[in-house]
Amino acid sequence: MELSDLPIRDDLQGKSPYGAPMIDVPVTLNVNENTHSVPAEVRASILEALSGALENINRYPDREFVALRLALADYVNDGAKGHSAPVTPESVWAANGSNEVLQHVLQAFGGPGRSVLGFPPTYSMHPIIAEATGTQWVTAARDADFEISPATAVAAVKEHQPDVVFLCSPNNPTGTGVSLETIEATYDASDAMVLVDEAYIEFAPDDHPSALRLLEGRPRLMISRTMSKAFAFAGARLGYLIADPAVNDALRLVRLPYHLSALTQAAATAALAHHSTMLATVEQIREQRDRLVTELTKMGYTVWPSLANFVLFGGVVDPHATFRGLLERGVLVRDVGIEHTLRVSAGTPEETSAFLEALSDVDALARLEK
Amino acid sequence: MELSDLPIRDDLQGKSPYGAPMIDVPVTLNVNENTHSVPAEVRASILEALSGALENINRYPDREFVALRLALADYVNDGAKGHSAPVTPESVWAANGSNEVLQHVLQAFGGPGRSVLGFPPTYSMHPIIAEATGTQWVTAARDADFEISPATAVAAVKEHQPDVVFLCSPNNPTGTGVSLETIEATYDASDAMVLVDEAYIEFAPDDHPSALRLLEGRPRLMISRTMSKAFAFAGARLGYLIADPAVNDALRLVRLPYHLSALTQAAATAALAHHSTMLATVEQIREQRDRLVTELTKMGYTVWPSLANFVLFGGVVDPHATFRGLLERGVLVRDVGIEHTLRVSAGTPEETSAFLEALSDVDALARLEK
Repeated sequence: MELSDLPIRDDLQGKSPYGAPMIDVPVTLNVNENTHSVPAEVRASILEALSGALENINRYPDREFVALRLALADYVNDGAKGHSAPVTPESVWAANGSNEVLQHVLQAFGGPGRSVLGFPPTYSMHPIIAEATGTQWVTAARDADFEISPATAVAAVKEHQPDVVFLCSPNNPTGTGVSLETIEATYDASDAMVLVDEAYIEFAPDDHPSALRLLEGRPRLMISRTMSKAFAFAGARLGYLIADPAVNDALRLVRLPYHLSALTQAAATAALAHHSTMLATVEQIREQRDRLVTELTKMGYTVWPSLANFVLFGGVVDPHATFRGLLERGVLVRDVGIEHTLRVSAGTPEETSAFLEALSDVDALARLEK
Repeated sequence: MELSDLPIRDDLQGKSPYGAPMIDVPVTLNVNENTHSVPAEVRASILEALSGALENINRYPDREFVALRLALADYVNDGAKGHSAPVTPESVWAANGSNEVLQHVLQAFGGPGRSVLGFPPTYSMHPIIAEATGTQWVTAARDADFEISPATAVAAVKEHQPDVVFLCSPNNPTGTGVSLETIEATYDASDAMVLVDEAYIEFAPDDHPSALRLLEGRPRLMISRTMSKAFAFAGARLGYLIADPAVNDALRLVRLPYHLSALTQAAATAALAHHSTMLATVEQIREQRDRLVTELTKMGYTVWPSLANFVLFGGVVDPHATFRGLLERGVLVRDVGIEHTLRVSAGTPEETSAFLEALSDVDALARLEK
């Protein structure tokens, strides 16, 4: 029996599932995880919370995840500098990863007959989630060096008249940011719901503030975040959204009831109580990112300035060969499909060194073979 | 700012979110949970697994949940008598609750321009998930006493020509089963995907076998299950599906990547290793269900024979008044919207006694007031 023998939807025929390769190598720098483990004392505290949750695990979890929303609001209120703002628990939504948050947003505000506008290259799941929810994915070009000026954004919105706009800042896979001016102009230029995907915001410098600054008085603005990156919690799958409470009322109409397990709620709430400790590695990761920019530039690569925990570098003659060469040396990076580029996450100092040495080695061999 | 001020989808305008009331009362018999806690020794084993998962919680979870699929296959192979069958891990799919499993199924095989056939009264989430995925929900009537004969099912399938059929067995909220003959006839009468929702199958008597018996040679047949009911694991949110591996290939195209957290995978895998202990309460719950049938009948109510862990009883003059009377006495049951009925879950012997006494009390008061 083959997939093609089954009556699947026509638009799924011949498709392949999403999948960054999951290969067990010593240095994994392909999916922009925080490569630092959660500190032992925080793990102990999470485990205590999980033990409590197990006592009632025969019961359905809190459908309104009240404690978690309180903890997320606290974190947003006094979390990473430059990216905090006073929000109430009623402004917070959460789901199993920011992918599910985006799915809820498109189920409520997108769907058949509606469209979402994006600016590729951007997070590869955006068009996939659009398709999964029957929302038309429309795109507009960026300016040079992957930037989006207010004028470019406004022109795109006026041309496409989308129902939803996705702005990714810092943007994956380019590392570039979207300015508050561009976000404001996008919002003002249409009646669309405007979502700023800030999965990597904690890695941005303080002078690149979060779109939270714009939230007041803008009920169509939504800011999505994740605990998967700076927060070192990718395995726990917790994404969240900050928006007007009325937006959350809309998402409540499309979420499956009890979508957040009691274990997820307990673990995330406990981790958030330790947010200073959880974010302690951010500064170190920023240093390694800046080191990657410096060293890759020295090696002759084109490097885009990155506000995130990864770097996109260009001028790679044969990305497939370089990817394979690195893999043979135990280093996994990502080919994001942009010609002559590769993307690498900033890891620990040791992992960053391992990557740079492996790349040097691959380059030297390539020169010899010429 | 009100929800109606936002540009939500037209079909969501004026809707209310799903929600069984979450009220903190001594005796909660409204959402068909297993009211027995997970035994302490199993909790300890789960906690050990969670501790291991936390060591790598900064990394994304196994997208293919290999260990969990193995554990689920083992459980299905030698789980509850009458409801087991030899299946391979490749035949197993899983998601955050069986609701998400059903959503995956309709995303792959339903969606805009397609329909799913159900037989109300049935699980209230079926039409909601249909709507959320843009699948048309079409319905056919049951026979007397909520049964579905092969002829009734075949006639409905021939009339509506659905793309997907949902059969719930044992059926929520009626407790009635669907025979293997009806499932077989439904399958043979069309080219639709046929899903049997067996959320409550472990409570059915051994002479009401699982549809697993029909799986071989029927690639369009799917059986959904949950760990929320007999398995006493509602808080952990783990539903699963058993079907031809090609069906799972289809679901892989629509699931969000990393949809199952590392904590969910670890906890469920550890719990499944103790499945005999986890199912130890099933026999006791069946006894309480049968006691409910006997006692409610004695009290003059109409009771439908139930294969599940709950009982639907009719002849309730004013369900709203009885619901409120029970609630005032600390007992929460469910008004499922079928005229002159209420539904009550079978709890511990003490909880069942508390319900029966409270109902007696409410009835006595009602007679006095006449």
